[in-house]
Amino acid sequence: MSKLSALGGEAAGAAVESRPFPWQDRPAGCDEVVWRHSENPIIPRSPFPGVQGIYNSAVVPFGEGYIGVFRTEKRTRFPLLHVGRSPNGLEWEIDPEPIEFANFESAPNHYAYDPRVVEIEGTYYISWCGGHNGPTISMASTQDFQTFERLENAFLPFNRNGVLFPRKINGKYFLLSRPSDNGHTPFGDIYVSQSPDMTHWGVHRWVMGRGGDEVGQWWQRTKIGAGPIPIETPDGWLMIYHGVIDTCNGFVYSMGAALLDLDEPWRVLHRTDQHLLTPEAEYEVSGHVPNVVFPCAALVDEPTGRLAIYYGAADTCSCVCYAKLDELIEFTKNHSAVF
Amino acid sequence: MSKLSALGGEAAGAAVESRPFPWQDRPAGCDEVVWRHSENPIIPRSPFPGVQGIYNSAVVPFGEGYIGVFRTEKRTRFPLLHVGRSPNGLEWEIDPEPIEFANFESAPNHYAYDPRVVEIEGTYYISWCGGHNGPTISMASTQDFQTFERLENAFLPFNRNGVLFPRKINGKYFLLSRPSDNGHTPFGDIYVSQSPDMTHWGVHRWVMGRGGDEVGQWWQRTKIGAGPIPIETPDGWLMIYHGVIDTCNGFVYSMGAALLDLDEPWRVLHRTDQHLLTPEAEYEVSGHVPNVVFPCAALVDEPTGRLAIYYGAADTCSCVCYAKLDELIEFTKNHSAVF
Amino acid sequence: MSKLSALGGEAAGAAVESRPFPWQDRPAGCDEVVWRHSENPIIPRSPFPGVQGIYNSAVVPFGEGYIGVFRTEKRTRFPLLHVGRSPNGLEWEIDPEPIEFANFESAPNHYAYDPRVVEIEGTYYISWCGGHNGPTISMASTQDFQTFERLENAFLPFNRNGVLFPRKINGKYFLLSRPSDNGHTPFGDIYVSQSPDMTHWGVHRWVMGRGGDEVGQWWQRTKIGAGPIPIETPDGWLMIYHGVIDTCNGFVYSMGAALLDLDEPWRVLHRTDQHLLTPEAEYEVSGHVPNVVFPCAALVDEPTGRLAIYYGAADTCSCVCYAKLDELIEFTKNHSAVF
Amino acid sequence: MSKLSALGGEAAGAAVESRPFPWQDRPAGCDEVVWRHSENPIIPRSPFPGVQGIYNSAVVPFGEGYIGVFRTEKRTRFPLLHVGRSPNGLEWEIDPEPIEFANFESAPNHYAYDPRVVEIEGTYYISWCGGHNGPTISMASTQDFQTFERLENAFLPFNRNGVLFPRKINGKYFLLSRPSDNGHTPFGDIYVSQSPDMTHWGVHRWVMGRGGDEVGQWWQRTKIGAGPIPIETPDGWLMIYHGVIDTCNGFVYSMGAALLDLDEPWRVLHRTDQHLLTPEAEYEVSGHVPNVVFPCAALVDEPTGRLAIYYGAADTCSCVCYAKLDELIEFTKNHSAVF
Amino acid sequence: MSKLSALGGEAAGAAVESRPFPWQDRPAGCDEVVWRHSENPIIPRSPFPGVQGIYNSAVVPFGEGYIGVFRTEKRTRFPLLHVGRSPNGLEWEIDPEPIEFANFESAPNHYAYDPRVVEIEGTYYISWCGGHNGPTISMASTQDFQTFERLENAFLPFNRNGVLFPRKINGKYFLLSRPSDNGHTPFGDIYVSQSPDMTHWGVHRWVMGRGGDEVGQWWQRTKIGAGPIPIETPDGWLMIYHGVIDTCNGFVYSMGAALLDLDEPWRVLHRTDQHLLTPEAEYEVSGHVPNVVFPCAALVDEPTGRLAIYYGAADTCSCVCYAKLDELIEFTKNHSAVF
Amino acid sequence: MSKLSALGGEAAGAAVESRPFPWQDRPAGCDEVVWRHSENPIIPRSPFPGVQGIYNSAVVPFGEGYIGVFRTEKRTRFPLLHVGRSPNGLEWEIDPEPIEFANFESAPNHYAYDPRVVEIEGTYYISWCGGHNGPTISMASTQDFQTFERLENAFLPFNRNGVLFPRKINGKYFLLSRPSDNGHTPFGDIYVSQSPDMTHWGVHRWVMGRGGDEVGQWWQRTKIGAGPIPIETPDGWLMIYHGVIDTCNGFVYSMGAALLDLDEPWRVLHRTDQHLLTPEAEYEVSGHVPNVVFPCAALVDEPTGRLAIYYGAADTCSCVCYAKLDELIEFTKNHSAVF
Repeated sequence: MSKLSALGGEAAGAAVESRPFPWQDRPAGCDEVVWRHSENPIIPRSPFPGVQGIYNSAVVPFGEGYIGVFRTEKRTRFPLLHVGRSPNGLEWEIDPEPIEFANFESAPNHYAYDPRVVEIEGTYYISWCGGHNGPTISMASTQDFQTFERLENAFLPFNRNGVLFPRKINGKYFLLSRPSDNGHTPFGDIYVSQSPDMTHWGVHRWVMGRGGDEVGQWWQRTKIGAGPIPIETPDGWLMIYHGVIDTCNGFVYSMGAALLDLDEPWRVLHRTDQHLLTPEAEYEVSGHVPNVVFPCAALVDEPTGRLAIYYGAADTCSCVCYAKLDELIEFTKNHSAVF
Repeated sequence: MSKLSALGGEAAGAAVESRPFPWQDRPAGCDEVVWRHSENPIIPRSPFPGVQGIYNSAVVPFGEGYIGVFRTEKRTRFPLLHVGRSPNGLEWEIDPEPIEFANFESAPNHYAYDPRVVEIEGTYYISWCGGHNGPTISMASTQDFQTFERLENAFLPFNRNGVLFPRKINGKYFLLSRPSDNGHTPFGDIYVSQSPDMTHWGVHRWVMGRGGDEVGQWWQRTKIGAGPIPIETPDGWLMIYHGVIDTCNGFVYSMGAALLDLDEPWRVLHRTDQHLLTPEAEYEVSGHVPNVVFPCAALVDEPTGRLAIYYGAADTCSCVCYAKLDELIEFTKNHSAVF
Repeated sequence: MSKLSALGGEAAGAAVESRPFPWQDRPAGCDEVVWRHSENPIIPRSPFPGVQGIYNSAVVPFGEGYIGVFRTEKRTRFPLLHVGRSPNGLEWEIDPEPIEFANFESAPNHYAYDPRVVEIEGTYYISWCGGHNGPTISMASTQDFQTFERLENAFLPFNRNGVLFPRKINGKYFLLSRPSDNGHTPFGDIYVSQSPDMTHWGVHRWVMGRGGDEVGQWWQRTKIGAGPIPIETPDGWLMIYHGVIDTCNGFVYSMGAALLDLDEPWRVLHRTDQHLLTPEAEYEVSGHVPNVVFPCAALVDEPTGRLAIYYGAADTCSCVCYAKLDELIEFTKNHSAVF
Repeated sequence: MSKLSALGGEAAGAAVESRPFPWQDRPAGCDEVVWRHSENPIIPRSPFPGVQGIYNSAVVPFGEGYIGVFRTEKRTRFPLLHVGRSPNGLEWEIDPEPIEFANFESAPNHYAYDPRVVEIEGTYYISWCGGHNGPTISMASTQDFQTFERLENAFLPFNRNGVLFPRKINGKYFLLSRPSDNGHTPFGDIYVSQSPDMTHWGVHRWVMGRGGDEVGQWWQRTKIGAGPIPIETPDGWLMIYHGVIDTCNGFVYSMGAALLDLDEPWRVLHRTDQHLLTPEAEYEVSGHVPNVVFPCAALVDEPTGRLAIYYGAADTCSCVCYAKLDELIEFTKNHSAVF
Repeated sequence: MSKLSALGGEAAGAAVESRPFPWQDRPAGCDEVVWRHSENPIIPRSPFPGVQGIYNSAVVPFGEGYIGVFRTEKRTRFPLLHVGRSPNGLEWEIDPEPIEFANFESAPNHYAYDPRVVEIEGTYYISWCGGHNGPTISMASTQDFQTFERLENAFLPFNRNGVLFPRKINGKYFLLSRPSDNGHTPFGDIYVSQSPDMTHWGVHRWVMGRGGDEVGQWWQRTKIGAGPIPIETPDGWLMIYHGVIDTCNGFVYSMGAALLDLDEPWRVLHRTDQHLLTPEAEYEVSGHVPNVVFPCAALVDEPTGRLAIYYGAADTCSCVCYAKLDELIEFTKNHSAVF
Repeated sequence: MSKLSALGGEAAGAAVESRPFPWQDRPAGCDEVVWRHSENPIIPRSPFPGVQGIYNSAVVPFGEGYIGVFRTEKRTRFPLLHVGRSPNGLEWEIDPEPIEFANFESAPNHYAYDPRVVEIEGTYYISWCGGHNGPTISMASTQDFQTFERLENAFLPFNRNGVLFPRKINGKYFLLSRPSDNGHTPFGDIYVSQSPDMTHWGVHRWVMGRGGDEVGQWWQRTKIGAGPIPIETPDGWLMIYHGVIDTCNGFVYSMGAALLDLDEPWRVLHRTDQHLLTPEAEYEVSGHVPNVVFPCAALVDEPTGRLAIYYGAADTCSCVCYAKLDELIEFTKNHSAVF
């Protein structure tokens, strides 16, 4: 069996032993598979002077602690990527200036939002939604989170929620994405694409679609999109994703999970017929975009199977929720509707 | 004069005397016609494990207490009907499983929301919005809330807010409804239809329309829909209804009232030119669908004229508000704009 | 076997023998199942002073010739129903004044379009799309096409293309219709409803839906609607209908056919996977509404199996096309896709 | 240099000396240019019986205190203008009845919202969004806030956010406005028009447009509209305005500022590339229209340069925020993007 | 009685006597009030190399013949105004280059379409739809059609179909217009505004609205717009206008007429309940925009009462139709529905 | 200099000498750069029994004559690809059955429209718009037009108008495309992508955008898309493309041209500020989709510089127009607006 790839700490540094894992046990009386960090949001609204919000961001283990790439909106509301560092995954210092890419002349300052980060074979890759006369999947790499190389965009517009797999499969990189349109797209399925070189992509496959009017599809009937880097398990790739329903007063974003075939990840083995987390806390229900739970990253503590999921709330602040990996997989298998 | 039919307790059991009426007196300093229960919501958000919300539901007196049919959404967000029981109309136990209909093969599990319940001649009828390749008015009957018979849908799609009158009028059943489209309908008037047998419906009449740009119409200018079972009074059928206005950030649902002719209920005698309740409490303003007050049932305490109105709040939780029947009728007559 | 009900001449008068059937043989070199009358349109654009168009109309045998109810638009473009008479089904005299209904006070002059006519047990019934604060299925009856009785609307708004079956089935009247919205509806399926008395309708069943992205569904993927009165055959009810596809420049209406179960007409036995007629003649492609072929009536010559189908073209003029009943049934069975 | 016209107290009365200025010093630890009044909202939701909200309103110094014109919505939700009075600019008494205009027969009671008030040469002018078969800029004048003269509408529909300059420029009145459509307009730029007589308007000039996808334009990319009466300064007219971004769950209204040329006010000298205030307080984020900060008036304390800005929050309540005039001008010049 | 102002020949030159009037008698067998020129279109599609169409244009008597301002679209499809000259009103020479305005720096080449021309007190005024960050009413004047002075835009965007009255009324210029939005506006009423100086406009009045679902309103239920310069008659100002209905395949533009009060032209005395001309000729039904009849100018032969109406057809070519003034007025009075 | 690659006859066979080139000289009196074949359409509406239309198709020289891939719609209106053969490029025989792909299991029969064909290094590549839960760019190859190999889709949905360059550039294949949405996309720019292997694509670059409100952009302001295979010339790649404008009655598709840099084809050197051909012939103006001119292929006669352009008309039939290559290049350079 493969190791849990999202962890990846040993590739990047030495001090894994001493790195504290962000965690809170399930509260007494709670019988949910996923539960919230009690001090949410961990990065509140307006966390720094001139910054209106940090959310929908990605973290990875790094060195003796954690590092991340954060969607940061100053008062211009223009989203850019900033590096953040934390000793424990909960308290974060965010660089006041956005990431700069030395090698790429085009649109050096254009919008960049909803980043994901993954380490593959010793290099960290960042994928995000970037502007190219329309939103699409932009990419960059770094070794040290100090120097960043801008890679080519993976796709033509219009696309969002590009998420890399944490290792090559059959010798190729794999990238999930959600083709969309140039607005607040009211539809969207998840596809997967392959690349030999992180530059050219092809062999596109449809993975799974948004729901319809059936029982297990209602909460995700408008669109879906991959969230954190998929987590390799003996039961398949665990893909945590968001599902959206449109109400008469707007979209509601919830969190679900699916298990994808390890070798042919466009084959869905299981898929939760219900959400795991939906906007219920005040900081999820109210904010710049009410009713949004948007997972973008997950940490796995391999020895214990503890799982910390990072999600943006209400396009306003950053939050964490927890699960046990084995429980989550079991739940996904037992409450599954594949369609 | 007819009795107040929504009460109907004597038909269903014996113990009316001992049944407590849900009630709180008007708070000191309040001069509103309708006031909120101070412990709202009576069924809060996520009331049970795996249930995200119970709202827009209907209750009737039954036996020594009360019984109801509740729109219940588990984590799938798929709405189904569950029976609930209460000794006092305020504390409710909800069946964990949805109502099943033994006699009807089609769509046994399809969506069912916004139920109303009424007792007519010893039988309890449930009407709700059900799926038939589009939302329409579904119907069922029961004697005991244990065995349920699925009746034919009253109408073709697309329709919502089907509300029966509590007795036959000139020998026929009467059913209010709000024809709509297959989405978040941005228009809608109230019609009434007649049936000799609860299966075939006809003699459709337009009752009243949504408002326009005039003073008394602004709060209900997008669409309207009947709420609780109409209450028979010497001044006509008291129809409590919801009126909707669309803002740049979505619909706002408020509560109004009208008095309809007792024999020809498509004739509107009076209609409030203003709302009686609009989203102002935190649990009405924030939730899965912000800014919704949606009345679906009312209890009348005949000897005292006390009125308890059940309404869903923000498509998230269940609430109660109170009024005095005579005051409400007087208010409707004194603040009326019929158009 | 039952007789072909749409004929029905013998019920209404004596002179069936002498009545000429409108007909042209299939042109040499043509191998289509359906072919156009060579002198189309039989009622051209602006046929009379002050009348801009007559189209989407219905005819039946009557007396020694034919009679019909015609959607007639004067220069107001307001559609109303006019009676027309013809000795041969091809040359028509249209009454200059619309039909008046003596017994019905409401909306005496409101819009009325796309009529169908059928004789059932000696009475002629007219169904059409009429206004009731929105379009719905209106009904009337006559014995002699001189005095007309307005019946109740069959349904609540919003509905179009109400088409009666030509006899009772299991003791009830049956009515096809296409629920819609209050505009240029971009969706729509066919349902069937039942009535014991032509006034109250229920037991609604979904018959068949619009198409999707599959081969046999593309031409009818936006909406569908029943056309002429269904024709009873040993192979089932032959329902000629229109199917619509939306292009970037508007809707295109074509003609298809289906065979429905004789006793349970909501069961589709066969359904053409392709259109039988699509706008190709200049008078179908250009006009007030370009690219419309809209069948509303059909005559069957029982002894010979000849079929004359009346259709409106481009919302501008009235046309006829022909088929052999046995060939059409065979074609429908051999090129069928039921979905 | 001209005096700061929005003050204008000496024209209207005597007691300027004793008039307290509404003010709170910047809180400790706050480094924002604009900060909120700590007791916001100053007029809360449902402030009076039968009144659901007062917001988006305008105040001016008057006599020994302040006077204002308030958008007041009773339970009809129909907006009308009411006069309010305050000794200190923070505690307000609102007339229970709306302003009446004796001299104008048309639409005496039609809707009136989002007023602005300015004193020019001893007369107070009110401009607001009024109905004329569509929203447009309505006008009135008064000397004493007891008798009001209705003037002609400045423009044809459809228009909103009409804001007068506080003095003539080159002998003409100047009026900012935001042409729109007849709904929840998803676009809109600011123009300025001129008049010799407050009745006829022309010489229209485009002032500035909504933003696009650039850094300093994102927060205001849907539409913009002038707010308080422009404040004359040596650096140009200080125009505080609102900028709107549309999210998937609705519009978000923030506050920005621009400096316009004193003689040719359609020339933009500076314009904040970021918002100065965005919905973050609970009363701004939640309400009848969530996420709205809508400035309509500002008071300047000339000797000290203190600035009190009145704004509506969430279309529900009235609030105040503060700034130092010199700081705000400096900030606008230093964080400027003109486009 | 006033003279028929649209003629105006005597003001502009000498040779009125010898000027032939464009005319064809009503064809035999025709009993319409308005009939087409038999050689339509008078300016066909692609009339000159590199010009794709000339349409929706305006003509006036001038010198010994006629002169006009023509919407001319070269292969860029960008509409500009060109002068045209004709000896007889039917054969036209069009200047190859567009009109240039020497005195106005802004947008010298911006789009200009649907011009109207009128002579008032010896000066010719041109009004058209011009771009000012959105379409609005632009204006210019000339004495000789060789030198043109650009005047200020009459209105803010968004507006179309600006039509001047041919003389001052009570000392003021009057201008009809149709406020709209920034796209293919699906609504629109006619207003009238006043000006003392052709620069500043005010005292706006609603004249008449688009139709609804009533008989005489159906053909004009989407929007309406004034056409030729109003013609003064003893029965009021004869305003020929276009009315639009939207079908599922686009808009259909027809021609109607109204009589407005001579002194208070916002008072509608009569208004045709039906169209006078609707797209029926091939050149009206097919073209760049199918189904458009768009009148922009009319000539009156005062001695005989003959009327020649110029209209664009299908946004492709220029046409003429004829009427007798007395017949048209009589028809308008006898087939009138004012709403 | 490179040869004109679209010709490519010598790679595929021997008989180039005897192959007649489809051609008609410019008609007398015509001074257009592009002129129509006088016998258009070369494949008319309903060319074969059961086929409603063949259009938007591609041809190449092959053997002694020509071969092509044709969008063929039978009565299902479902578009599929059929091979056609012609001795002279004008008279065509079309295979009655669609192309089958032996090696590809997925969606063997799914829709396929608007093909382009190009020969590169001895292999013929077909690109078209195919269904993959939404339209995207599908690909196949053949040597002989008898056996076809299905390649991987080049892109994720949603995309249309994929057009290959006729040779590798700097060792890579280049593919033009127009990202779109899942409907009748009302926007769209042209991009170019690169591939080392015809399977994986990347290094995407924006080439040129749709127009705006400027003179040379109006006719193409809604969307644009590449047409025939680009033609290599000393002045750059000649890209013939379609530009679309939306009118109130639908889209109008016209033909334009651009010259792209030979080595960096995302650099636009020249671009016609006007269309070269717009719907004016009856078969372009009327049809299943009125007002469409849609070029998909071009043949170049290298010795003479004659150019035959194949285009679909009105989504109904196939047509040809002609130009001289040198004149077209000169025209493009002299009437250019790059934006």
